[in-house]
Amino acid sequence: ELAEAVIAALTPKQLSGKKIVMTAGPTFEPIDPVRGITNQSSGQMGYAMARAFAQAGADVVLVSGPVALATPLGVTRVSVQTAEQMRQAVMREIAQAQVFVGVAAVADYRPLEVAEHKLKKTASVDSDGGRTITLTPNPDILAEVASLPAAPYCVGFAAESQNLDDYAEAKRLRKRLPLVIGNLVSDGLGTADNCVTLYDETGRYPLPPLSKPVLARRLVDELAARLNKA
Amino acid sequence: ELAEAVIAALTPKQLSGKKIVMTAGPTFEPIDPVRGITNQSSGQMGYAMARAFAQAGADVVLVSGPVALATPLGVTRVSVQTAEQMRQAVMREIAQAQVFVGVAAVADYRPLEVAEHKLKKTASVDSDGGRTITLTPNPDILAEVASLPAAPYCVGFAAESQNLDDYAEAKRLRKRLPLVIGNLVSDGLGTADNCVTLYDETGRYPLPPLSKPVLARRLVDELAARLNKA
Repeated sequence: ELAEAVIAALTPKQLSGKKIVMTAGPTFEPIDPVRGITNQSSGQMGYAMARAFAQAGADVVLVSGPVALATPLGVTRVSVQTAEQMRQAVMREIAQAQVFVGVAAVADYRPLEVAEHKLKKTASVDSDGGRTITLTPNPDILAEVASLPAAPYCVGFAAESQNLDDYAEAKRLRKRLPLVIGNLVSDGLGTADNCVTLYDETGRYPLPPLSKPVLARRLVDELAARLNKA
Repeated sequence: ELAEAVIAALTPKQLSGKKIVMTAGPTFEPIDPVRGITNQSSGQMGYAMARAFAQAGADVVLVSGPVALATPLGVTRVSVQTAEQMRQAVMREIAQAQVFVGVAAVADYRPLEVAEHKLKKTASVDSDGGRTITLTPNPDILAEVASLPAAPYCVGFAAESQNLDDYAEAKRLRKRLPLVIGNLVSDGLGTADNCVTLYDETGRYPLPPLSKPVLARRLVDELAARLNKA
């Protein structure tokens, strides 16, 4: 905590006066009281960014799915489990925000029905011993925030296992995001290092491989420069 | 580490000379490179038991699903992700073991097909925007170990959201386990405290609510007493 406070004191306040709402971690979509569908996300990238934003003077609200990480110094954390809970927490905070950053690995789908009690292995199986789960789409939090009448500056993440440029550019255009940060999942999900590429309306900017804390500080610079121009 | 070493030195060596193979944490069954099905399990109970077993002198092999916990002092940890990987790791170690304890929240089912690349929101959806996942049963590690020709003393866990006595007793009889430790999931999954009931061939023994470390030491006593009789 002391080291964190010292770093915060020494960091230029590039984001002073900005309220940043962000999401991090996975969501967990229950199947029954113990089982669920989730994503492989440690939350490390989002938490590193929340810390770097706070150190740069921003008022940071971090809406977080279930992770095993401490809340960074000076960050307001709202803990949620599902995508719908994450959406509601974001919408409660977004009106006063100048920036929204969606880092969370939100589940695109959730089980259509949630069983009140733990499903037994012997219940409702097919003739071949299998079972099916019917899924329904989750809200798209980033698209919803980006389409608000007075939308904040929206930053999206694209974690892909292939065709990163195509998918990240398509995401930027489809959701009308000023900035998308893309990475190949083999490069970073759940691990300590990250190699990302930035996509904005002026082009494609690959960054070198950086540790998540160093990358987070670099992204503060990238964000602050773009906010000054916007 | 020092405190752990001191506690270990002061603990009676009730399990000296015993090799204990155990499982802990959830399993993660991939849907694609980022998504998967998992259980809500922090691994805390299993890790507390592994620590208590090691402090009581046992040679402990802990086969662990993905958790955010440090390996207890003196415990050999094998990290796995899926139920099938967990089964293989257990089977490699089980021949020399006198005790097997299945604490892991193993997924009963896994997706029948694992997508090589991240599924896109726009791909293969139903006409109503939904999607289905077909599941296939996972191996039952505990039942397989308990049915080995020279089976070790097998301890099962039953985490249930209702009808605990019925389900735990049925599990004990169906899998022919000498001991089942049951708890209601509202009482302990992912939280710090636990309230469990022991089921063996002589009856049903409810324990008072205990912290997981204290409960783990109590379970060492319960296990050692039963091994001495067996």
